[in-house]
Formats: sequence, C-alpha cells, structure tokens
Amino acid sequence: MSEAPILLTPGPLTTSARVKAAMQRDWGSRDPGFVALSTRTVERLRTLAGADESCVCVPLQGSGTFAVEAMLGSLTRPDERILVLANGAYGRRIVEICRRIGRQVEVYEVAETQTHDPAEIARRLELDPGLAAVAAVHCETTSGLLNPVPEIAAVVARAGRRLLLDSMSGFGALPVDMSGMDIAAVAASSNKCLQGVPGLSFVICRRADLGTRKGVAPSLVLDLEAQAQGIEADGQWRFTPPTHVVAALSEALDELDEEGGPEARLARYSRNCRTLVDGMAALGFETALDPARQAPVIVSFREPGEAWFDFTTFYDALCARGFAIYAGKMRDVGTFRVGTIGAIDSIVIERFLDCARAVVTEMKQKLIR
Amino acid sequence: MSEAPILLTPGPLTTSARVKAAMQRDWGSRDPGFVALSTRTVERLRTLAGADESCVCVPLQGSGTFAVEAMLGSLTRPDERILVLANGAYGRRIVEICRRIGRQVEVYEVAETQTHDPAEIARRLELDPGLAAVAAVHCETTSGLLNPVPEIAAVVARAGRRLLLDSMSGFGALPVDMSGMDIAAVAASSNKCLQGVPGLSFVICRRADLGTRKGVAPSLVLDLEAQAQGIEADGQWRFTPPTHVVAALSEALDELDEEGGPEARLARYSRNCRTLVDGMAALGFETALDPARQAPVIVSFREPGEAWFDFTTFYDALCARGFAIYAGKMRDVGTFRVGTIGAIDSIVIERFLDCARAVVTEMKQKLIR
Repeated sequence: MSEAPILLTPGPLTTSARVKAAMQRDWGSRDPGFVALSTRTVERLRTLAGADESCVCVPLQGSGTFAVEAMLGSLTRPDERILVLANGAYGRRIVEICRRIGRQVEVYEVAETQTHDPAEIARRLELDPGLAAVAAVHCETTSGLLNPVPEIAAVVARAGRRLLLDSMSGFGALPVDMSGMDIAAVAASSNKCLQGVPGLSFVICRRADLGTRKGVAPSLVLDLEAQAQGIEADGQWRFTPPTHVVAALSEALDELDEEGGPEARLARYSRNCRTLVDGMAALGFETALDPARQAPVIVSFREPGEAWFDFTTFYDALCARGFAIYAGKMRDVGTFRVGTIGAIDSIVIERFLDCARAVVTEMKQKLIR
Repeated sequence: MSEAPILLTPGPLTTSARVKAAMQRDWGSRDPGFVALSTRTVERLRTLAGADESCVCVPLQGSGTFAVEAMLGSLTRPDERILVLANGAYGRRIVEICRRIGRQVEVYEVAETQTHDPAEIARRLELDPGLAAVAAVHCETTSGLLNPVPEIAAVVARAGRRLLLDSMSGFGALPVDMSGMDIAAVAASSNKCLQGVPGLSFVICRRADLGTRKGVAPSLVLDLEAQAQGIEADGQWRFTPPTHVVAALSEALDELDEEGGPEARLARYSRNCRTLVDGMAALGFETALDPARQAPVIVSFREPGEAWFDFTTFYDALCARGFAIYAGKMRDVGTFRVGTIGAIDSIVIERFLDCARAVVTEMKQKLIR
C-alpha cells in the first residue's frame, strides 16, 4: 500500500494520528463504558452548537446526508411546506430529499456565486403562511461559499418560522450559536471541521419540535424522535452504532478543546485558506468566488482555459507528490477544489504550493500528461 | 482507559488487531485508490453470497437495519404486499419498518423458540396472489435461532415469489447461496460474522428487480437503485462512505479467505458454541432453544430462577474479568446471551467459562452483589 496522501478535500479529510489511534479498541455497543462515551460525546456536540437543555443532539449512523434527510423528515409534517434556499448542489439536494420523502417545497434559488436576499426571504414568508420552515446550507461545499446564516436566521425568526440548517462543512469551525442566532435545528457530521472519521452524523434540535411531530418521519431508521427517545431511555442507540467512529469523534473533540475551540480552529483554517489563495494566485489560478463570500473550508479555483491544463493529469501528479485535491462541482464554470480543513496547518499548505508549482511547470513544458 | 473486554456479543464484536490496523490510514472518498478498494470489496461480498453478475452488491452507510429498510423500500412497490415471517424481535422489526415506509404486510408469527411451517407459508402464498415477496430473518439474534432458509427459499420459489432475507448475524458463516437457494435479496452488515467494524451494511440483489422499481424507495439516502447507479457510474458512493470501515472490511475479507471461507468460519463458530453450551451446562445454565434450532452465533441461556442470580451483578463481574456478555431479548422467558462469533476461538471460550465458574461460585456465596 502506497503512503497515504494528505487530503485537501472537504472530508473525509486528514485526521490526526491520535484520532485514528482511538479506533484501536473494540467497544461493546451496549456496554456501560460505551454508553458513557456516547452520552458524553453528544452532550459536547450540543454545547458546541450553543444549544441549551431545551435542545437535544441526536446522533445517527451514516453520512451527513442521512442527517439532513432525518432532519427534514422528522421536523416537518407533510402539511408543513419548506422554503429551500439553494445556491449549489447541497441546497438542490435538500429539494430532492423533500420531494422524495413527501415534503412540499418552495425553492428560492440564486446563482452559485451569490447569496440570498434577506428581504426576498422575508417577502416570501410573509406572502405564504403555509411555509412553516426554511432550509438552508451553511457552507456550500459545491463552491466553498459561506451563506450569511446570522442574517438568514434573523429574518426567519422575525417571520416566526423555523430555520433548519445543513452545517455539514461548517460545524466545528464556522460559528453556530443555536440560542443566540435562533436556529431550530442543525445537521452536521463527524468528518469535516470536527476532524473525526466518517460514519456518524447528528442533528441538534429542540425537544419540543420533535415531541410534537412524533411518528411523522417516513422512515424507521431516520426517525429522530424515536432515536432520541431510545437514547434518552438508557443511553443506548436503537441500532448498532459505529463504535470506532464514535470513539474517534470523542478524541477529535478533545483535540478541538485543546486547540482552543471553534474560534481557534477557524483562525487556523483562515490562515490555511489565505496561504492557499495567495500562493495559487502567484501560480495564475483564480478563485471562482468573491473573496467576501469565501468560507475558509474549501476553495474553488477556475480551471485555466489553456491547452496545458488537464484536471486528471494535475490531480495524478499532485497525488504522486502526496496531496489529494478534489474535483470541481460548480454548474456553470469549470473548477477544481482544494480543501483547507483537517489536521493540517499553513506549513502543509506551503508544501502543497511547492508541489503545485513544480507540477504546473512540468505540465506547461508538457513533461507530463 | 481500562483494558477492552473480549466481546461475547452478536456484534459489534472483537475484531483482530489487523482489522483495526487497517483503519490507521485516511482515504480520500473520491480518490481512485479508495474507489478500487471499495469496488473490490463489494465484488467480494457478491461472490460470497453465491450471486452471479445478474446481481449487484449495494453498500450502504449505517447499521444493518439501514440495509433492511433500504431492501424493503427499494425492492417492493407500495402495491406489492409482503409476507413477513416473524419469530423474534428482528422479524417484528421488519413489520415495523414496512408499516412506517408504507408497505403492506401480512405477518406469519410463531413462538420465539419455533420455526415456520413451510406448508403454511405455501398455503398463504397460494391464497393471496397480492403477496409479492416474503421477508425472513436468517439467524434471529433475539434468541440465537437458526431459521431454515433453504426450506423457506424453496417454498417461496415454488410459489413464484421473491425472498428478501435479513442475514445480518449469519452472512459470512451460515450458508447463503443466492443462486443455489433462489434468494432474491440478502441484507447484511460488516460487523458480525464478517468480523469487520460497524458502520457499513449492504444488500445483494438482482439488478432487474432494482431496475423495474426505479424511484419507488421513499427515501433518497436509502434508495438502493440510485446508490447502485451512482456506484456503477464511476465507483464512487453518492454520499460520503465510511472510508475507515470499508478499509477494515477489506482486511476482514482477506482474513476470511485465509481462514478458509465461510465453511471454515462456521466450523470454528460451531466449536465455540459447543464448548460454550457444554461448559455452561456444567455450571447449571440451560439454553432457551432446542439444540437443533441453535445457530452457532449467539446462545440464549435461561436466567436461573434462584435468589443468588442477578444479571447486572453477573455482567459486571464477568466484565471485570475481561468478558462482555449480552442482555437477553426473548419475550416470554428471562434470558441472557453469550456470543460465539468474532476473532475468538474455543480457547477464549474456555477462559470465559473459567471466569463464569468463579463468578457463579462467588455469587452463590454472596461474595459479590
């Protein structure tokens, strides 16, 4: 097996040796030791979200999209219409989930480089009293765009509606304050800014919102109310939890505390992002987004429209030098993406830039193809 | 952190050091290296099931119940009624899933110590042409009972219906031959007889059955047809796979091959089970099942109806000596369970019996409570 490359991706990402070492033990899923580990972990996630005891953190097996589907299906009834704010693939995925699970949506879509107008959100909510909730994406991983969650949350709260937030690639670094920002629910996962391994997602939401919607979820495994009840009864998950992934997340939360919490982590990611964007600019690569809208999580670079550039060649050559980047996903413009999150610092980014410089030089000289 | 106990449970179970070591690398989920690992792993699972290329193995994030729900929702339409064979909690869970996801069921339930009468299955299928499929559980983990899959499959095939099998705690050791036994679909998971870690499940089924039911799944994340299409397109999962869990399963499949395949594994588990049952009998513990119906996977022992016995005390004392057993789950009789699967052999079981003997002696002398 070749040496693992550093992952400059939106997750699964490069985790610390310590996080991976936490997976070297088998836990009994119904053993009091594991129950204590799991209970403490979900409590820490709730606290990280700035949520008080009127809220609960419900962990779920599976990737982040499992939590998003569970959030939508468990926190809205079929007669509660949802206004979806879309400006990328993850917003559009919310629409796809809603249609599949029998939830009615109204879609407010803007370009992938733009954010939504709060006044327009307010206008739509005022016009249509049937819109019970608003669903939004925190950081649109499609492009790397940061949606203005405080502004969105304020306008939704003023209209007396609930905000359901997909904070997949934001939670753990980008500010999420459920009490302060008046957010009804947040879905996220273990393997992005929390720097755990993939396999676990979670939804933090108000107990009351679950309680009044008992049985509405059109799925047994994705029923957050039943999952919360099961866990509250004796600390045990209803169905086998990914024990090693939970242990890794617990260790990752220790690391987050030791780093200084989400604020310190955001500062590190911001340094990574600045180093990356400046260094790539020096190599002639332009970002796809206005810098004011760029989240320091993942950066979309425009593919150079020049004959020397080919993504697969670029990817393979970087991988051979020890760095895995990420393909682009924007709809109207050819891009590739480079992540700035994970157990990496700006020294790693500098090393990546050295490799990128060498690869660009070789590609331009057509030494590799 | 205390030393991890040996897990005598139905999974998550004790895995080898080598399987856990496979989780010491971070994989990029869209990197060609991971795609190759994942592709090879699902192909090996399909082969293990005795399924030819008309079948596909669809991996899924989450625990085994996620795969069972995905199988039921993706392989039946709302107008296709399902005959569920129930003789334990996992059969009843199939009924619960069907009701939640909008599938109509007829339930044929027998006592938890009994198996279903093939003639009665045939009679029900003949009487009701609306029953399009039969859902059954291979090893009922509730009790440890082995359902007679070949007999059930034969009667279902003769009636021209499809058998959907939950082989969660059987797959990898108990014989599953989809072609030879005429089984339409099998759901299982990584962390039972395959001896991987939890976090991944899968369904092996006929491509044609998925293709003719495109879009019927009442869930985006649990849609097997879409998951299969996504993976067949470029080898990538639609949503973040549990990369470390997949790597561990790949290693576990190497171990299974080296052991000599499911047949050799079943022989080891059978030795474990015989050693356990004989040793526990010598300590005065009776099994809840007729030996002819006992799967060598997990054994339910009747709780002694005597004043000295208390499950929590027994559990804690065994755990302190390095063995985690499992609570009982049978409906009409007080039991506890001891698993015989995982990276353990009969020498480990002998060591467990030594501990159990010491604990029973102490409990009878009321030295511990």
